Amino acid sequence: MSNAANRNSWVSSANGHPDFPLQNLPLGIFSPPGQAPRGGVAIGERILDLKVACDAGLFEGEAQAAAAAASGDCLNAFFALGASARRALRAALSELLAAGSPAQAQMEAQGDALLPAMADCQLQLPAKVGDYTDFYVGIHHANNVGKLFRPDNPLLPNYKHVPIGYHGRASTVCVSGTPVRRPQGQTLPPGQEAPSFGPSKRLDYELELGIWIGQGNAMGEAIAIGAAGEHVAGFCLLNDWSARDVQAWEYQPLGPFLAKNFATSVSPWVVMPEALEPFRAAQPPRPAGDPQPLPYLLDAQDQAHGGLDIELEVLLLTAAMREQGLAPQRLALSNTRYMYWTVAQMVAHHSVGGCKLQPGDLFGSGTLSGPEPTQFGSLLESTFGGKQPLTLASGETRTFLEDGDEVILRARCRREGQPAIGFGECRGVLLPAR
Amino acid sequence: MSNAANRNSWVSSANGHPDFPLQNLPLGIFSPPGQAPRGGVAIGERILDLKVACDAGLFEGEAQAAAAAASGDCLNAFFALGASARRALRAALSELLAAGSPAQAQMEAQGDALLPAMADCQLQLPAKVGDYTDFYVGIHHANNVGKLFRPDNPLLPNYKHVPIGYHGRASTVCVSGTPVRRPQGQTLPPGQEAPSFGPSKRLDYELELGIWIGQGNAMGEAIAIGAAGEHVAGFCLLNDWSARDVQAWEYQPLGPFLAKNFATSVSPWVVMPEALEPFRAAQPPRPAGDPQPLPYLLDAQDQAHGGLDIELEVLLLTAAMREQGLAPQRLALSNTRYMYWTVAQMVAHHSVGGCKLQPGDLFGSGTLSGPEPTQFGSLLESTFGGKQPLTLASGETRTFLEDGDEVILRARCRREGQPAIGFGECRGVLLPAR
Repeated sequence: MSNAANRNSWVSSANGHPDFPLQNLPLGIFSPPGQAPRGGVAIGERILDLKVACDAGLFEGEAQAAAAAASGDCLNAFFALGASARRALRAALSELLAAGSPAQAQMEAQGDALLPAMADCQLQLPAKVGDYTDFYVGIHHANNVGKLFRPDNPLLPNYKHVPIGYHGRASTVCVSGTPVRRPQGQTLPPGQEAPSFGPSKRLDYELELGIWIGQGNAMGEAIAIGAAGEHVAGFCLLNDWSARDVQAWEYQPLGPFLAKNFATSVSPWVVMPEALEPFRAAQPPRPAGDPQPLPYLLDAQDQAHGGLDIELEVLLLTAAMREQGLAPQRLALSNTRYMYWTVAQMVAHHSVGGCKLQPGDLFGSGTLSGPEPTQFGSLLESTFGGKQPLTLASGETRTFLEDGDEVILRARCRREGQPAIGFGECRGVLLPAR
Repeated sequence: MSNAANRNSWVSSANGHPDFPLQNLPLGIFSPPGQAPRGGVAIGERILDLKVACDAGLFEGEAQAAAAAASGDCLNAFFALGASARRALRAALSELLAAGSPAQAQMEAQGDALLPAMADCQLQLPAKVGDYTDFYVGIHHANNVGKLFRPDNPLLPNYKHVPIGYHGRASTVCVSGTPVRRPQGQTLPPGQEAPSFGPSKRLDYELELGIWIGQGNAMGEAIAIGAAGEHVAGFCLLNDWSARDVQAWEYQPLGPFLAKNFATSVSPWVVMPEALEPFRAAQPPRPAGDPQPLPYLLDAQDQAHGGLDIELEVLLLTAAMREQGLAPQRLALSNTRYMYWTVAQMVAHHSVGGCKLQPGDLFGSGTLSGPEPTQFGSLLESTFGGKQPLTLASGETRTFLEDGDEVILRARCRREGQPAIGFGECRGVLLPAR
């Protein structure tokens, strides 16, 4: 019902909006001008203020409880309520904001207090991140990077059995728009025997899908794959900024550390699983000869319906492009179809040994590159390890990021006969090293 | 003054206490019988309840502010106040609890309300862990494990340049006494082509020093090595439970994940840096031929005084030993002298790229083995990769941990002419897999 293609909103900017039509209704945390952060819902060019909506008595029952939980300064309490409360809130929002809603007159009377313009608001990190985990489920990325780091051994023997992941840094997960400082660190420049210290010279982005965890599990318990979807609160874009030169020197034997922990950017809006229902797909078939997943990773419903068809895009806007008035230039267009493991498989794997997941935990998918160079989700891949610079519309070239470069991630779901929905943007401009 | 060897306490059990004499005064969170968690100070067999002490007006000025911050249900707010507030509280506590204190009569009059018996209280996790990082600074451990995982290449080229660390799981850091469930996971048994799923068969402990972070830094800023000590709130014991068979199969290329994230146990008492002052030492000289640390890791004061001389012990108590009435058996006695990097070097390195540290972040040192087999801090090392079983006093043997085994870590500081201080215990019993 809330996904029905023919439903319009009385919030006119929502109709035909590339990201936030009535069928999307993502939640986030925002600050109206001069006010404290609170929960809201993106609708067209506006944000529905959930605190004002609650105070106005617009919700009832489970939707009211969910809206109240989402009206504070972070969505963790809302995530903790789980899928049923979220669905109730989504259904209520869809009714309230639909053309012909009996509440329209009451809502319009509240004006900007209830529906401030998004452009006037400050968007915030949607939840307090308990733990952040970065997966590595983009098989083309794993192959491409593997070739650069280990030419003889690109894809390790565990890759097709284990949804590989590692723990990242929660404290530096930041919302779109937060500037990112180029890190200093140790690197071993080619031909040198001893490492040097200084600003990273090979700073990169990674185009990832972010996954917000809803209800968690107790330490020592596992989430079965069949139940895993119910533990996902929503989705966002994620840029896993990476200092490749630092990474190459530090990552053995315990994995990336300073190469990644200076910043991870996420888009502010949490797209609900229900909004993505029309864009679900079967998990792409494994290539012939690939092993079957172990039973704890295998679920018929997940195989049939656990894939996602979301276009992912990365764009670059350099300082020179800003000066010349040029638009951001697309560097790659990829898709979540290139995930070798589904989100449910990631959740089931993460918890199978008893690791406790909590509301507000964040997963990154890992870089989601496609097989073609125009689909590569990092500069490391697009420039073949920095060997083949990209030429930009401004006449500049890039192997890795320069100070002043702004990286912009976007995502969009399209399907014949269905209004497209989008994720908004995940932006970050690179500041020079201190 | 608060470390003076000749000072006794009017709390008689403190005098000569192996862990908690007047010279120690570690902070923690505890629940008196039937009551909510709050902050306290270990003194002999008793705990000084900081909330009751605050309400009784025992503190003034900066010490009062610090005690109030430490009297809630976690120490994060106290950690955030920093070193000056901590020193003020320590000085005040040392005066209040010293023999001859003018406050003695008033305090004794409050009886168990102010100073409940530790044995009657439930000890809690001392802080909400924001992020948990596990380092790898025990060079003998790195060498021993490196030999097992990479016989040709035990110590990687970066080891003597980089204080290697990786992000661990904050959500499963648990306090001493929390039972630990044997994890299930994927492993590749020897001689098999494809992985199996089931309970880990090579479950191990790791004997580590834990470090609690106090005041943090902003994202994009670094903590200079000369200032790093001021960002450390205190120390504890840490058992980094490890599933070696899961680890061997999963850890390439991004590091340990499920092999470690099911549980990390810490001792409940936070030993203040000031209590460890008498047990500071020069950083042990690097072996001839080892490289000099890069300047950001080098500080004359840290070199002269940044080492620690703390005895670390691991003991095992099996179900059969409990039935036979046997005492826990020591499996290893090691020392923090075997850290290749100082705590200040760990802090400076962690933040040098701009990673934000926050009050309540936890570091593990990595396993601190000595050069001799009786000093090995994990079963992986003590049994030479599971090849040479240990024989126990009960007549049992062990390669790795069995269900029902309890692992007990202890730490003590001793110096001629100085009362010994201890860390208390970090215990955990292993439950069978689900």
